[in-house]
Amino acid sequence: MGADERGYGIVKPQDYEFGEAGRGVRLDNGQEFGPITVRYETYGTLNDARSNAILVVHAFSGDAHVTGIHHPSDKHEGWWSGMVGPGKAFDTDKYFIICSNVLGGCQGSTGPGSIDPETRKPYGLTFPVITIHDMVEVQRKLLEQLGISSLLCVTGGSMGGMQALDWAVSYPDFVRSAIVLASTARLSAQGIAFNAVGRNAIMSDPAWNEGNYYDGSPPGRGLATARMIGHITYLSDESMRVKFGRRLRKREAYGYDFADLFEIESYLNYQGDKFVERFDANSYIYLSKAMDYFDLGDRYGGLKEALARTKAKFLLVSFTSDWLFPTYQSKEIVYGLMKSDKDVSFTEISCPYGHDSFLLETERQGEIVSSFLDTVNGK
Amino acid sequence: MGADERGYGIVKPQDYEFGEAGRGVRLDNGQEFGPITVRYETYGTLNDARSNAILVVHAFSGDAHVTGIHHPSDKHEGWWSGMVGPGKAFDTDKYFIICSNVLGGCQGSTGPGSIDPETRKPYGLTFPVITIHDMVEVQRKLLEQLGISSLLCVTGGSMGGMQALDWAVSYPDFVRSAIVLASTARLSAQGIAFNAVGRNAIMSDPAWNEGNYYDGSPPGRGLATARMIGHITYLSDESMRVKFGRRLRKREAYGYDFADLFEIESYLNYQGDKFVERFDANSYIYLSKAMDYFDLGDRYGGLKEALARTKAKFLLVSFTSDWLFPTYQSKEIVYGLMKSDKDVSFTEISCPYGHDSFLLETERQGEIVSSFLDTVNGK
Repeated sequence: MGADERGYGIVKPQDYEFGEAGRGVRLDNGQEFGPITVRYETYGTLNDARSNAILVVHAFSGDAHVTGIHHPSDKHEGWWSGMVGPGKAFDTDKYFIICSNVLGGCQGSTGPGSIDPETRKPYGLTFPVITIHDMVEVQRKLLEQLGISSLLCVTGGSMGGMQALDWAVSYPDFVRSAIVLASTARLSAQGIAFNAVGRNAIMSDPAWNEGNYYDGSPPGRGLATARMIGHITYLSDESMRVKFGRRLRKREAYGYDFADLFEIESYLNYQGDKFVERFDANSYIYLSKAMDYFDLGDRYGGLKEALARTKAKFLLVSFTSDWLFPTYQSKEIVYGLMKSDKDVSFTEISCPYGHDSFLLETERQGEIVSSFLDTVNGK
Repeated sequence: MGADERGYGIVKPQDYEFGEAGRGVRLDNGQEFGPITVRYETYGTLNDARSNAILVVHAFSGDAHVTGIHHPSDKHEGWWSGMVGPGKAFDTDKYFIICSNVLGGCQGSTGPGSIDPETRKPYGLTFPVITIHDMVEVQRKLLEQLGISSLLCVTGGSMGGMQALDWAVSYPDFVRSAIVLASTARLSAQGIAFNAVGRNAIMSDPAWNEGNYYDGSPPGRGLATARMIGHITYLSDESMRVKFGRRLRKREAYGYDFADLFEIESYLNYQGDKFVERFDANSYIYLSKAMDYFDLGDRYGGLKEALARTKAKFLLVSFTSDWLFPTYQSKEIVYGLMKSDKDVSFTEISCPYGHDSFLLETERQGEIVSSFLDTVNGK
């Protein structure tokens, strides 16, 4: 294993708990919400000047486990292990990396599946409807707790990119740079449409039961359907053609019966079922709704006005085959920043993997990120 | 109302019934299937030479009702009234137009919701798994019955284009020209993926009951979800942005509750519910499976070999914003025909309406079709 292929090693998830009923963070809906648990992981070492902290914010179905393993028996590293680790683009030998599970999530942080201390039952649909900005507010509380008052960088792809943008606009003096990958300043009508159909699939499952299923069976069929829809939007026409084509599963020729399954069907079924094991259906509903609401310019009277507030150095990256968050959406942010004379770099990477490219294409993306961080770090 | 805006007037659907149990058409699965009812409509007059017949073949959710109205009280004309009628591109003053509901459908032709004469119950999943070619075989029986042994043209968009292609390849001496709109020589992996998720949504609805729901409530929630997915793929990112954007339904500002519906969500809900009133869930399953199977070159050892059989003059049309059956898929057919020195015209129309463009963009498409038919008709 070469130096660049070193894994991060074993990492231990931690929980930060704060607030109490009616005290915690002020949400966009006006409610003061608590208590809140934040599941997070850190990698590398915070330097004495506390100037090398990078906040990684995860995408829709991600979690706090960015890189490394939890147990020696773990077969897979965290979701961005190609980008984060010793000698990697986000070099844990240089930087102190923090990632937390988002508010509303289901991987350790408080979400609709958490116990409401007032009723001693899971929140379900009594959980407040949250926004991308609410997630950022919770992350800020965590950084306060960790004694961090300045970020070298905040970075994320997709829904993570939304959070990174919100960070740069909401807390200009906190954020020295932002790396926004495969993301957008506002979710498109098409994006809202796919989210809405996913929620509809979950809510159509009788097991969903208006969100009250925690003492019985979860709405697995509905959640699997939602995930299958999502998964198609994360890939591309080309990547599916190359990877699956029109090959049948376990058959050479058509049988003209419903046992005829194409490889792509079988793959989606597998992805749907696997997702049900690790994700909460109500979190799907809440997090997708938060994405729908996201419109960076909304609270500042326009995108230009919002971006004018920022003091960070920006890097935006889009991918040619990403049709869910296409390049024109990244360019809109780039143009908005340029109009306000902000320091912004942009690149479109030619890559066939669709929206998932930010997770999969680590080589060129890694080089670009690494160089960008060097310039921010003053090298 | 100008000459070009004349409607077709009142048309009466007709039924052609043929075959009996075990006798009808030989299906691709090897089974001889009957009896079969074909619901069809005709427009215009067959000339004495029987040389002006045009077969229109409908897309996935279409039916035999192409143009005109059934009753004086009908508010809407048939699904292609912009293209078919007196003075229109498919000019009913010149041509005799025939359209039938496909085998497996639910708008009058025999499908999984029809009564199996042997059991006196609806077929449900005992209905044979059919193909695009099987649909064509049934259409051929209808044309025989109508005394038509040569088609001036066979035309259709999307799944209709698949049938038109199969006609030209299967019956070279029958088809003088073929107009193939927004279609493909084989369904892509992405197309199969969307169909698979739609079927999964239907089959996940407990009301589906393995296809046995005809004496109770149909799987409306599942079918609506399937339709919503389909509907997104028929539109485009741009058309959704222009038509719906991020506007909320009946609200000016976010309420941060689940009553916040974006216009696009409300539209998809409406489309899903409306579809359930007119479409059978099992037909959705069978027809989508037939599309999945479609691979024009399959039975001839390759696409080039299949296209080499044709004797028709071809017109292929694709649309810039169609991402479900993108232009490269039409071009593949064009190149295949050119390699065999066939007579083929091709145009890509710049149009924002996505895959649905072949239904909505009647002006330029109409001019192109009209000119093409004139050349076929020897003018």
